[in-house]
Amino acid sequence: MRYGFLGPETTFTHQALLQALAETPEEFAGTEPELVPFASVATATTDLLAGDIDALMAPIENSVEGGVSGTLDVLAATESITIVAEQVVPITFVLAARTAMDLAEVTTVSSHPHAQAQVQGWLRTNLPEANVAASSSTAAAARDLAAVSEQEAAGRAAVCSPLAAQHFGLQVLAEGIEDFEGAQTRFVLVTREGRIPARTGADKTTLVVQLPHNRSGALLEMLEMFSANGVNLSRIESRPIGDFLGRYSFSIDAEGHIEDRRVAAALRALHRVCPVVHYLGSYPRVDGQRPEFREDYGDDAYDQARDWVESLTSMVTRPDGNR
Amino acid sequence: MRYGFLGPETTFTHQALLQALAETPEEFAGTEPELVPFASVATATTDLLAGDIDALMAPIENSVEGGVSGTLDVLAATESITIVAEQVVPITFVLAARTAMDLAEVTTVSSHPHAQAQVQGWLRTNLPEANVAASSSTAAAARDLAAVSEQEAAGRAAVCSPLAAQHFGLQVLAEGIEDFEGAQTRFVLVTREGRIPARTGADKTTLVVQLPHNRSGALLEMLEMFSANGVNLSRIESRPIGDFLGRYSFSIDAEGHIEDRRVAAALRALHRVCPVVHYLGSYPRVDGQRPEFREDYGDDAYDQARDWVESLTSMVTRPDGNR
Amino acid sequence: MRYGFLGPETTFTHQALLQALAETPEEFAGTEPELVPFASVATATTDLLAGDIDALMAPIENSVEGGVSGTLDVLAATESITIVAEQVVPITFVLAARTAMDLAEVTTVSSHPHAQAQVQGWLRTNLPEANVAASSSTAAAARDLAAVSEQEAAGRAAVCSPLAAQHFGLQVLAEGIEDFEGAQTRFVLVTREGRIPARTGADKTTLVVQLPHNRSGALLEMLEMFSANGVNLSRIESRPIGDFLGRYSFSIDAEGHIEDRRVAAALRALHRVCPVVHYLGSYPRVDGQRPEFREDYGDDAYDQARDWVESLTSMVTRPDGNR
Amino acid sequence: MRYGFLGPETTFTHQALLQALAETPEEFAGTEPELVPFASVATATTDLLAGDIDALMAPIENSVEGGVSGTLDVLAATESITIVAEQVVPITFVLAARTAMDLAEVTTVSSHPHAQAQVQGWLRTNLPEANVAASSSTAAAARDLAAVSEQEAAGRAAVCSPLAAQHFGLQVLAEGIEDFEGAQTRFVLVTREGRIPARTGADKTTLVVQLPHNRSGALLEMLEMFSANGVNLSRIESRPIGDFLGRYSFSIDAEGHIEDRRVAAALRALHRVCPVVHYLGSYPRVDGQRPEFREDYGDDAYDQARDWVESLTSMVTRPDGNR
Repeated sequence: MRYGFLGPETTFTHQALLQALAETPEEFAGTEPELVPFASVATATTDLLAGDIDALMAPIENSVEGGVSGTLDVLAATESITIVAEQVVPITFVLAARTAMDLAEVTTVSSHPHAQAQVQGWLRTNLPEANVAASSSTAAAARDLAAVSEQEAAGRAAVCSPLAAQHFGLQVLAEGIEDFEGAQTRFVLVTREGRIPARTGADKTTLVVQLPHNRSGALLEMLEMFSANGVNLSRIESRPIGDFLGRYSFSIDAEGHIEDRRVAAALRALHRVCPVVHYLGSYPRVDGQRPEFREDYGDDAYDQARDWVESLTSMVTRPDGNR
Repeated sequence: MRYGFLGPETTFTHQALLQALAETPEEFAGTEPELVPFASVATATTDLLAGDIDALMAPIENSVEGGVSGTLDVLAATESITIVAEQVVPITFVLAARTAMDLAEVTTVSSHPHAQAQVQGWLRTNLPEANVAASSSTAAAARDLAAVSEQEAAGRAAVCSPLAAQHFGLQVLAEGIEDFEGAQTRFVLVTREGRIPARTGADKTTLVVQLPHNRSGALLEMLEMFSANGVNLSRIESRPIGDFLGRYSFSIDAEGHIEDRRVAAALRALHRVCPVVHYLGSYPRVDGQRPEFREDYGDDAYDQARDWVESLTSMVTRPDGNR
Repeated sequence: MRYGFLGPETTFTHQALLQALAETPEEFAGTEPELVPFASVATATTDLLAGDIDALMAPIENSVEGGVSGTLDVLAATESITIVAEQVVPITFVLAARTAMDLAEVTTVSSHPHAQAQVQGWLRTNLPEANVAASSSTAAAARDLAAVSEQEAAGRAAVCSPLAAQHFGLQVLAEGIEDFEGAQTRFVLVTREGRIPARTGADKTTLVVQLPHNRSGALLEMLEMFSANGVNLSRIESRPIGDFLGRYSFSIDAEGHIEDRRVAAALRALHRVCPVVHYLGSYPRVDGQRPEFREDYGDDAYDQARDWVESLTSMVTRPDGNR
Repeated sequence: MRYGFLGPETTFTHQALLQALAETPEEFAGTEPELVPFASVATATTDLLAGDIDALMAPIENSVEGGVSGTLDVLAATESITIVAEQVVPITFVLAARTAMDLAEVTTVSSHPHAQAQVQGWLRTNLPEANVAASSSTAAAARDLAAVSEQEAAGRAAVCSPLAAQHFGLQVLAEGIEDFEGAQTRFVLVTREGRIPARTGADKTTLVVQLPHNRSGALLEMLEMFSANGVNLSRIESRPIGDFLGRYSFSIDAEGHIEDRRVAAALRALHRVCPVVHYLGSYPRVDGQRPEFREDYGDDAYDQARDWVESLTSMVTRPDGNR
């Protein structure tokens, strides 16, 4: 099995993948999984569809920064893939340099813009004069800093994960520098379509839904379809469709599994009303939390209702006496 | 075939039944239908269930007086019956007496309370001094007046249908005396359960629904189930459940047939949520008016949505690899 | 003070009026109220508007029979009246005759159709052979039976209130003959418009609402306006508007007083959307039950919201710099 | 007047500000506006509140990339600011270098990540081998490229606006390289709180709303408040609140002005129900499009409803006879 992740090595995505492999040993028994870093979710997805890798770990939302557009847009645009698991990784950052130095000596800080956004308060307070340079990932910031000459490294620091600092042999100047303690990023494990994990009772279903654009109140109508079937949403993100301003699709996590009758009923209603409903998978929640719902949203209630209506329609008789 | 109707002879119900028999000759070809008057819908229903009659015509609503409680409550309380047709009869009344007389000579007017209610304005204006006496039907008022001695008939008049006046040989003192011109009564033809007429495309479905009594907003929730499936209601009547004040059931006519996917979907939702859903039948509308609804409420939309969800659930795989 | 009631004497309405006068002595201190029976709610209302009486007690709904059409329709059609109080009277019936006799000897039973409907089960079981005659009220049935000759009274019985039997000197053959134990009728005390009783915290508001007839989903929309303001309905009755089948107005009791901000907000919304909203009064509930609602439906929440929006609009500045 | 913009010079934000100044000459008559670039919306906002600048132009959403998190989050977190205008700028990119060269010679492309995302398809097709380097803005990419030595500039190109290429004297290697033709970015002009532009009839109102987190269906409830007052939303963006996964605020553009009664009514309802409603301003739409709404959502309908309810409550009378 080959697993792609948003690289380079030591990213939080790498950590999420390691975490997933550690948690589900039976699935990987007897196999030595191979981990493959990718420069972008888009290129990894291309390789996934081509069969070069078997699964792909990608960040989907961060508790501070919100949805990860790069992942959301690729998932929305790609047919024939399925999310089969999720992982949550606590996000903490260190400021690291080649050699120990006072903060006052730091003149340039490099990191990925998403990471910068999460430490900007700390930077403003502690390094108000430092230049901020963008790198393509926090891991790249650390790796690049480790690779330059000692001279070039003078006055430079990187915002990166503790793992990255350790892996690339950097000195930690400050740790826990994120503005919001307790920040987390959620990751999803994506495979080629074909197999949906069975219901555990504590599941999520991920969808991308496009609303009829010529009908005001369409978002309200979509939410009512979930509500009418007792399905809560744990995440809803608007993403532009891309053609012009004011046109959105919605990326949604619904509480429940497609095997839950209430989720299936909500999906049927969506399919009728929305021009695009892209089903991205049903998979176990990492927090194991089971949804609460009224008894009349249970499987039995749906099954009995279906049976009752079928027993009635079986009595419909054509004028010729046939049923 | 034996047909019951709310008697005695010459009631509007009688007229509705004659109208039904005239309109659907092919169903009655080769048979001489027998028409049987009943004193109440309740007793006729008992005979229907016992097999003594094959069908029953009963008034269900009047454009002025509203729902006919006696019929609504019997239909609500009776299992194993089905409405298979409806009829609408224009309601017009005459004031009739044994012999021609001036209105000033009329001292007592008898009629059924429902009829009185429909002519009360005319009575107040034209016969402000007359006593009003209740009879068990307008036909009974006419028949009884025809039966008393001439002496007893002095000063007495009956409010009845033109047909009744003619049939019982009474003189018409005034005609068209109803307060609301254009009043109509709707009647339903009830049979024993077992056969639902096939969909014509212009149909009604009649239900009695009891709401969960411990949940505020339950009526709103019920209406949303129809709305969410594009089903309009052409009639909704609250009727007390009878146990204490403030507890209602709702008698409903929905536009559409149980063979319409959108009606079936609404019924399934009702069955889940409401403690009692009593299906009373789907039958052709007498006005032939076809419902209008958005394309996403059409049969195809429901069928495609069902197929789509089924294609997804077929991919669910147990941990042992079975589907 | 002159109080009208739906007569004749000894009706349940009479009893409701006596009950109201006994319960609110301070309002009637120093005055000897005069009680005036009327033959119909319509005629009493005419006298109320003319100033001949000061208030009117009328039945509005029965726990078994439902809404009292005669009252509902007069209230709906009359401007310039206000409901200021309600009363609830337990409904129990006796079978009474001139002299004691076996049930087997009873050949004719007279009563008002509404009362008959409430004892029809008992009559079917105990007097299956007896003729049923309609009278204009249960009191009239008792009074008339007391008035005929002893010979005419043979075999005749009346279904009436215990009070009526006692008042007219009849013998009680059977008591508690109502089919549904615990039946109740609710009555309202109506005055000329001009004075609404102050809020007690446990109040009802009565309305008649006509829906826009050309818009499907109008009933749903109306209910959403109450729901959006946390207002529960304790009664909703459909009544035909009278012009043609399928056109209804709705008679509604909402939990709360027009002084409650949430009720006022719901009324404002109704007034915008519905072609007719007829406000019939806010008055204390006879059961003293206070409505439960979320904090954000409390007066403070509405007042603070209004103040907040006003503080914003005060910042709007015309191009000329004026506000 | 000093106007801040997200710099450096030649950004699309710069262009939006120039466009705004050109379109509304009368407001700036006799003054020579001073334009001040800022490194971030956060720092510009600090200066705005401190009085160092008078207004600030910032990007808020892009038709391809979606909401601009940096702006949305600063607006959401800042009290005492008001949006007074919007601008829309078409987004088109060029690939520019110091000297003309074949695409095959380009080894490194620098740009801002948002711009890269909008040209990534073109880059994959035309420069599949080139390294992609992040800069802090497209303008910075151009400026930096113009500033390095000719030797360092070899093989390097920048993705930037046509204006930036021209301004910094770069050669355009390819133009119109954006993946989605017709992409646009919307900008808002922000001032200190205190003055809201008067209603034009074609306005937008921008809000940030936080939902009660302990209530499922809260998003649905919020949307119903807009819907119940006939207010459409032209934009809705979820943004994390930042404390933990799954907690969002919503950034909303509603069609209409706070002077519109229907918008004011929706805001009042939001204020009651939502723990946080941050009003960010009402301002003219740049496209001049007037909202369509039913007559019962017009100002007159609201005013008449308010007057009607006030006329009723004026009749409420205390037990002591006072009103």
